[in-house]
Amino acid sequence: MTNMLILLRHGQSEWNEKNLFTGWVDVRLTERGRSEAARAGALLAESGVLPDVLHTSVLSRAIQTAHLALDSADRLWIPVRRSWRLNERHYGALQGLDKAETLQQYGEAQFMEWRRSFDTPPPALDDASEWSQAADPRYAGIDGERPRTECLKDVVERLVPYWEQEILPDLTGGSTVLVTAHGNSLRALVKHLEGISDADIAGLNIPTGMPLVYEVDDRGTPSGPGRYLDPEAAAAGAAAVAAQGR
Amino acid sequence: MTNMLILLRHGQSEWNEKNLFTGWVDVRLTERGRSEAARAGALLAESGVLPDVLHTSVLSRAIQTAHLALDSADRLWIPVRRSWRLNERHYGALQGLDKAETLQQYGEAQFMEWRRSFDTPPPALDDASEWSQAADPRYAGIDGERPRTECLKDVVERLVPYWEQEILPDLTGGSTVLVTAHGNSLRALVKHLEGISDADIAGLNIPTGMPLVYEVDDRGTPSGPGRYLDPEAAAAGAAAVAAQGR
Repeated sequence: MTNMLILLRHGQSEWNEKNLFTGWVDVRLTERGRSEAARAGALLAESGVLPDVLHTSVLSRAIQTAHLALDSADRLWIPVRRSWRLNERHYGALQGLDKAETLQQYGEAQFMEWRRSFDTPPPALDDASEWSQAADPRYAGIDGERPRTECLKDVVERLVPYWEQEILPDLTGGSTVLVTAHGNSLRALVKHLEGISDADIAGLNIPTGMPLVYEVDDRGTPSGPGRYLDPEAAAAGAAAVAAQGR
Repeated sequence: MTNMLILLRHGQSEWNEKNLFTGWVDVRLTERGRSEAARAGALLAESGVLPDVLHTSVLSRAIQTAHLALDSADRLWIPVRRSWRLNERHYGALQGLDKAETLQQYGEAQFMEWRRSFDTPPPALDDASEWSQAADPRYAGIDGERPRTECLKDVVERLVPYWEQEILPDLTGGSTVLVTAHGNSLRALVKHLEGISDADIAGLNIPTGMPLVYEVDDRGTPSGPGRYLDPEAAAAGAAAVAAQGR
């Protein structure tokens, strides 16, 4: 059977707009982000790639994106599963900092290492910080596993078990699964799906609000690279992500 | 343990506004309905009655209501379950008809029997009707059980198993469950919870967008009648529902 997997990065958030490192801070979508999400759903409907099941992170911006996209595609009624394992990378002590100021203060090399190094996490975020999730009830059940900072390698390690145990079983047998998540959790998933090396993943940028579709077999192996439903808009969006902080 | 159950009827829909019989026709909320839903969520947050799990019907107006209420209450991340068993009563051949015209055409007695009789369903809706759900993919898995019309008794019979098997297990152990559903599916649930007689249930009207809270024990028995978080607004809303068609 051909199973369809749709990856969708949330639309512009309040902190994307302000150019702040967000990570696990639970900001909402901007009006532009809401439009991007609705447009993504319209693209799904036009293409006839209609999700049967939804997986989201537990962050509001991904949940809002899914709701608005499914509303446009007339699929609000599909089953939903959520997991912190689909959350954005935890950005540690960078959460809440301005990207341009961070670039200026720490220099290009350190800035790019934090943003794109595979295995170097930023300094950990103190539980007492206003940007910490230590008191957030949504993580009450996972306290032992709740990260204080993460590199992309950490995201791969907490995401792949969820892919194998929760998403893949939903995909098999001809189903279409929509995953609405984040720039770095989707980079981690694409790395795993396409077998991208630790070095090459640094060059991969995923645009906001652009459905990225894979055909995968029942073992989770894609038939080829993902394709964006609107390739031109996706290329422009990826270039904008790469230029952040500048 | 005290388990909290919150019942919430969706806010005003496009067909509530137009005064049409809706049933299983999948109309969306109006702007007023969206505001009602957001206000319901704010009431939950102010009262500290915060849902841990959400159950909705598979109709968009209940799903939208839940999303907007949970957004206001900052609980978008809670687990969600959906079932057609929480759907509005199927209104049979009345679906799509104007309530005032129906009252005029069939007279008060017939009109009230269709609206409030416990065990007399309206005529069945033909699968070929534009208001039928025969081709709706959300019901593809339940084709043998998909109703063509329902009386309130039918709603009780398809809803109570879901209450017992799916909602009650989520409620036990101190959890708070939010059920977002419809005028008649919530009347059916309240009838079951409070042990209201087949005759007396005719007089019960549930207003839109008003959280109705029960404390129930682990066997599902409420400690007393439900209380609206905003009793004055709820009384006015219930009177408005009773006057529909006039």
